[in-house]
Amino acid sequence: MGGKNILIAHGGGPTAVINRSLQGAVEAARSLKFGGKIYAARFGAEGILAGDLIDLTDVPAQTIARLDGTPASAIGSCRRKLADADYPIVLDTLKKFDVGYFFYNGGNDSMDTCHKVDELAKREGLALRVIGIPKTMDNDLVLTDHCPGFGSAARFAAISASELALDASALPIHVVVAEYMGRNAGWVTAASALAARLTNCPVLTYLPELAVDEDKMLSDIENAWAQGRGLLVTVSEGLRGLDGKPLADTGIVDGFGHVIPGGTAQHVTDAIIRKLGIKSRAEKPGLLGRAAMAYASEVDRTEAYDAGSAAVYAALSGRSGSMVSIRAERTPVYASSMELVPLAEVANAEKTFPLEWIEDGNRIGDAFFDYALPLIGGQLPQYAILR
Amino acid sequence: MGGKNILIAHGGGPTAVINRSLQGAVEAARSLKFGGKIYAARFGAEGILAGDLIDLTDVPAQTIARLDGTPASAIGSCRRKLADADYPIVLDTLKKFDVGYFFYNGGNDSMDTCHKVDELAKREGLALRVIGIPKTMDNDLVLTDHCPGFGSAARFAAISASELALDASALPIHVVVAEYMGRNAGWVTAASALAARLTNCPVLTYLPELAVDEDKMLSDIENAWAQGRGLLVTVSEGLRGLDGKPLADTGIVDGFGHVIPGGTAQHVTDAIIRKLGIKSRAEKPGLLGRAAMAYASEVDRTEAYDAGSAAVYAALSGRSGSMVSIRAERTPVYASSMELVPLAEVANAEKTFPLEWIEDGNRIGDAFFDYALPLIGGQLPQYAILR
Repeated sequence: MGGKNILIAHGGGPTAVINRSLQGAVEAARSLKFGGKIYAARFGAEGILAGDLIDLTDVPAQTIARLDGTPASAIGSCRRKLADADYPIVLDTLKKFDVGYFFYNGGNDSMDTCHKVDELAKREGLALRVIGIPKTMDNDLVLTDHCPGFGSAARFAAISASELALDASALPIHVVVAEYMGRNAGWVTAASALAARLTNCPVLTYLPELAVDEDKMLSDIENAWAQGRGLLVTVSEGLRGLDGKPLADTGIVDGFGHVIPGGTAQHVTDAIIRKLGIKSRAEKPGLLGRAAMAYASEVDRTEAYDAGSAAVYAALSGRSGSMVSIRAERTPVYASSMELVPLAEVANAEKTFPLEWIEDGNRIGDAFFDYALPLIGGQLPQYAILR
Repeated sequence: MGGKNILIAHGGGPTAVINRSLQGAVEAARSLKFGGKIYAARFGAEGILAGDLIDLTDVPAQTIARLDGTPASAIGSCRRKLADADYPIVLDTLKKFDVGYFFYNGGNDSMDTCHKVDELAKREGLALRVIGIPKTMDNDLVLTDHCPGFGSAARFAAISASELALDASALPIHVVVAEYMGRNAGWVTAASALAARLTNCPVLTYLPELAVDEDKMLSDIENAWAQGRGLLVTVSEGLRGLDGKPLADTGIVDGFGHVIPGGTAQHVTDAIIRKLGIKSRAEKPGLLGRAAMAYASEVDRTEAYDAGSAAVYAALSGRSGSMVSIRAERTPVYASSMELVPLAEVANAEKTFPLEWIEDGNRIGDAFFDYALPLIGGQLPQYAILR
């Protein structure tokens, strides 16, 4: 006999739709007339370790519905990587709050945590149902067509880059360099290349999967600028040089001992000014890439909701040790459904951007847009360009 | 007897709604059954000097309507400051294309140009009607309640800062520093302080009108961070230190010999990391602040349209030497109307942010929001914060 309550936790960086999955989970439990408490961990693993939970059981339906328009994490998140010694404390909290259904909404690290909690509960004979809800704007989880959070981040990159491209070509006094999030995975930055299709501004795009030769990059920028139609250059924050090191870093070391990359756009802009003698300015929307609700993708909002809801249905019907995964078909029209995949196979694997989708080092091929356009979703803007 | 055609030109940096004014002007001329040609200067003053005009007379109504959703300048703009020797060339173009109605849509410099063209035409006995259409996200034109373009830039700053504040407080692992446009005027950055009202994250805001003592700034940041609820710091790109110099500059010298400020957020972030030992990250949405259509203000879109339309009505009824200005009332509800003010009084004056609206150096008082909220316009987001 397991516990009778639900616990939901967020792990890692938020997305525009992580709260949508929370809404889906809470509303699914309510529609199933779930009789236990619905708890959320305050600030993710930190809240679990501290026994600091938020009781959502009686939060008004109107407030839960408002999660739809709320970016970041409404319950708080953290970047704490659990150590082996932490897991017994996690189990203590689960027992103390009589938790029978545990949902962890996050990316790779969170799925690893989820998997370990499931294994430990099984070893200790605890009838705990553990389901992972996928979330990462980086889109780097395996065994799922894509991740909730990616479509909105991709839509932000696609449309904001188009808007920057329009500005860059309407007043072509400088090369505009824009930096998008993605330390190791270029999925989001790739979406910024849609600006080349929605505007008449030349666009060069550089992803972290492909090491760049800075001299070649500058020469390509010089040639593109010489066309006289303005120029937008989009780069991933984690862009690497031929030596394998990030072109720029923040000077901050993360919890895993790695120096955090960033400032890449400024680095490229400085080189354009200094080495090419061309005016340039760097933009870094940064966290807005995962927080700008006005650019949230409809498809992403729906799927994030469904992922949260599917997790609750799965756990309450006795499933455990799985992550919700999105199965998608793109022909004749886009359609997706939720299924379950083993946590053991998701944890510690990473899906990087296919190198064959990058053309000439700085253009993104049709294959990516065939994949991503349905996820970016909704009506794309049509611009009036009269000049 | 003057010329029979219209010429419209854009000057300086675009806004989210400068194309709306173009739409208003073209549609007004069409609704008045204007019989001449409707020309636009390709890339502003550059196009006028080169005699390079775009004929908009027969552009389909559907394309003109699409100007509404198009950021940047659909006809192109430039930052060229006209020299005395340029004005006779401008007049040559106006004569060559038989222009009788000249509209210049821009900020301070453009109104100065507009004024000089009007004076010169009068001296030469040319029956030219010259009307300025105001435009600047900076909101620094005098003799108008506010400028078209400001409301949208303010809405972008207000909502994007709120979204960053939610992220900063949901995952409080770093001080988030965000830089907003404004080299001399803090109007836009002031709007970012709305984040303190829409979220529960502490927010400190620094405007270029008030020189900052960097030690005091860091000490205020340290104290605010110590509250443990995350922290958002918003700064104008043109923020100055006690020595009167920008805290950071781009290394680029503009056409007027001034070094262009910028990189201010990164400068503050570096100081937070180095001097306070607190993690920090800098964001710089940059040009998105004037190009992100998803954040355009409804009020601003309407007024920009009306300003373009009013300019055409005024010129076609014989007025000249004026700028369209917005008269606004805020009680009992917000209402605005268009009127005309003398170009001579607008050119070369600048409206800066009232120092008395800044509290304790880094908070923005109610007086500003009484002024700005109707311009930011529309429904403000209501967030679900459960933690």
